[in-house]
Amino acid sequence: MKNTTASIITIGDELLIGQVIDTNSAFIAQQLNKAGIWLNRRVAVGDVYDAIKKALDEESAISDIIIITGGLGPTADDITKPLLCEYFNGKMIVNEAALENVKDIFLNKLKRPLLDVNLKQAEVPDTCTVLQNTRGTAPGMWFEKNGKVFVSLPGVPFEMMGLIEKEVIPRLKQKFLTSHILHRTLLTAGIGESFLAEHIKEFEASLPSHIKLAYLPNYGMVRLRLTATGNDLALTEKETDNYFAALKDRVSEFLVTDKDINMETVIGQLLTERKKTVCTAESCTGGYIAHLLTANPKSSSFFTGSVVCYDARIKKEVLQVNSNLIDEEGTVNEEVARQMVTGVLNQLRSTYAIAVTGLMGPDAGDEKEPVGTTWIAVGNKNKTESRKFHFRFDRKRNIELTAINALNMLRTFILQNS
Amino acid sequence: MKNTTASIITIGDELLIGQVIDTNSAFIAQQLNKAGIWLNRRVAVGDVYDAIKKALDEESAISDIIIITGGLGPTADDITKPLLCEYFNGKMIVNEAALENVKDIFLNKLKRPLLDVNLKQAEVPDTCTVLQNTRGTAPGMWFEKNGKVFVSLPGVPFEMMGLIEKEVIPRLKQKFLTSHILHRTLLTAGIGESFLAEHIKEFEASLPSHIKLAYLPNYGMVRLRLTATGNDLALTEKETDNYFAALKDRVSEFLVTDKDINMETVIGQLLTERKKTVCTAESCTGGYIAHLLTANPKSSSFFTGSVVCYDARIKKEVLQVNSNLIDEEGTVNEEVARQMVTGVLNQLRSTYAIAVTGLMGPDAGDEKEPVGTTWIAVGNKNKTESRKFHFRFDRKRNIELTAINALNMLRTFILQNS
Repeated sequence: MKNTTASIITIGDELLIGQVIDTNSAFIAQQLNKAGIWLNRRVAVGDVYDAIKKALDEESAISDIIIITGGLGPTADDITKPLLCEYFNGKMIVNEAALENVKDIFLNKLKRPLLDVNLKQAEVPDTCTVLQNTRGTAPGMWFEKNGKVFVSLPGVPFEMMGLIEKEVIPRLKQKFLTSHILHRTLLTAGIGESFLAEHIKEFEASLPSHIKLAYLPNYGMVRLRLTATGNDLALTEKETDNYFAALKDRVSEFLVTDKDINMETVIGQLLTERKKTVCTAESCTGGYIAHLLTANPKSSSFFTGSVVCYDARIKKEVLQVNSNLIDEEGTVNEEVARQMVTGVLNQLRSTYAIAVTGLMGPDAGDEKEPVGTTWIAVGNKNKTESRKFHFRFDRKRNIELTAINALNMLRTFILQNS
Repeated sequence: MKNTTASIITIGDELLIGQVIDTNSAFIAQQLNKAGIWLNRRVAVGDVYDAIKKALDEESAISDIIIITGGLGPTADDITKPLLCEYFNGKMIVNEAALENVKDIFLNKLKRPLLDVNLKQAEVPDTCTVLQNTRGTAPGMWFEKNGKVFVSLPGVPFEMMGLIEKEVIPRLKQKFLTSHILHRTLLTAGIGESFLAEHIKEFEASLPSHIKLAYLPNYGMVRLRLTATGNDLALTEKETDNYFAALKDRVSEFLVTDKDINMETVIGQLLTERKKTVCTAESCTGGYIAHLLTANPKSSSFFTGSVVCYDARIKKEVLQVNSNLIDEEGTVNEEVARQMVTGVLNQLRSTYAIAVTGLMGPDAGDEKEPVGTTWIAVGNKNKTESRKFHFRFDRKRNIELTAINALNMLRTFILQNS
């Protein structure tokens, strides 16, 4: 059986001068994959008539489904809609439901006057099926031509996501019979990609051709993914689960989770199950660890708060770190990190605490240690563990690596001290 | 004069199942643009021989320069290097400089044994010029064929960035004579894209064909960018600056900055110029505002710290918010936000403070207000200003919108109270 395939075309000059990062394509790819649709290619083109038309021709030659995002805004640099109208031999008409939606958003929700430019948002080619966008003014459009499906969506992520979930995926599932695609993902920490590859070489060689293994390294962690294709769902699931169990067994000493979730979600689950809480004392990460933990909508049940102590005075006064210690030894050392754990536990009263202090760069400041030197401590009221790290990247990545390593130390600590 | 044009090809199955977001393309696009090279297209393909080969054929048919990222890792799912070897009629040889680099990284920097799979990183087609990667083990490769340049780079962002800056851009500049491309960018806040478009309609109509205007909306702010092309640099600069001055004048009431920088950088500059400091008291944003401010390497000079007070008890005990007020009125109200400003100024002793308390969703908790209700207060020791917002998006976007609006309120407050 032939796989159903898709291409994504993203439109906008902003993608070609690099002022925005395309997050839409990753989301759409995930949703297509879950529905059993293979993504062939992603193409980004500018707001240029010939470039868009060429992309439509090329992608529809290789894929069954073409998802188009962007180029539907109300402003003058958008040419996608008239182009689609011509491409699918239509004429522009006002869609009444879309018009009602635009009016409702401006008059009732935003409470702002409606401009002519906004009304144009309700115009669509008469050759499309309108996909109502309840989150914005630009409607989605569904076209069919020579057995291929073309879907045009607004580029605003929140609006695109609503349309993909509520309109596009259900309609695609109905239209295309697809084979089953299964993913099994696990997350490892504490081992690099090449060592991991060496470690599971024999496992990888044992995989049948319809089950693929991928390595997805990210900030000191490596995600491993098995992807299986098959027509018999039960059979494919059973076979994939067997290989996945073997893989988990092989990497057990580095395993963070056997779900496709991130480190902070793992921490949230561990704490919630045990009815425990955590707080953070953050110097060099500037609140980033707290931000990661509170991305979880349930975080108020396991996260109490954080003291971001950029200024050394806050370490002394709020966290009660020994003043002489800081004056004599500076702020980046093991004892400061350990006292920060104690101080923040006293102040914010959680079961566990994370403390980090380090030099993220690019400037070294007036400290004795080189850029990248970081002390991480985790603990509860009875016990504190601390470890020194040397990160050798740019500021942003050093901050992210500090946060991930701190969370992984906390994860291990919780498992050993709960 | 014909523009020099480029295409980017990103390789990796992970891009097609959406498990990673492609940030490399935006960086490369920025750097090419600054060098006066137009990006025609960006294409993402999987680790599939025919798909990569097709992309190479197609992109070299329309562009002078083809930048390829990804597919160079040591693991078994990477097929790019042998494919390039064949495509450019070469045979694989060991590059001695690349081998020295791999040995240095493993033996001296990582202090880990060298595996066979790592040594393979030093093998390259004999038809390429090697671009030394000082940040990792996979070397960059430069090929020329039929007057076109092909550059293959590792997909790890930190490594790719080093090679682009140190090797690729200088060589491209030397090889291609290009016309000048100038960008002028400003940032507005407090006005939506369509209202802004209406507001500057006449300005936009007045632009000559070689100067383009683009709207780049992002989280309640809109960036406006003028892009001009010309062969005479001085003349093009003068003309662009004149149009840019007119645009700034037209949007003055919404103008955040006339540089291509973000809101948090603007705040950092304002505070640094005035030798003032800021701290934050964050409930619903969970440290995100502090994280944004501390992305700035100079932030230790203007940011003292933050109290992330997720737990109501921390609002009471650490920030000294009136306990009865919270017990009777809950935590999401104007008076709590205002008292958080006073409390955090007392605790962390900055010139200015930001306080936020709100419901980011998706669950409403036990509060009286609907999801999205947020109070933001900013102040100094003499004065506090507060404002209520209703955000209607998902948790992540609500947090980002709260942070941006809080920073914009602080910006205005600093300008009016310094």
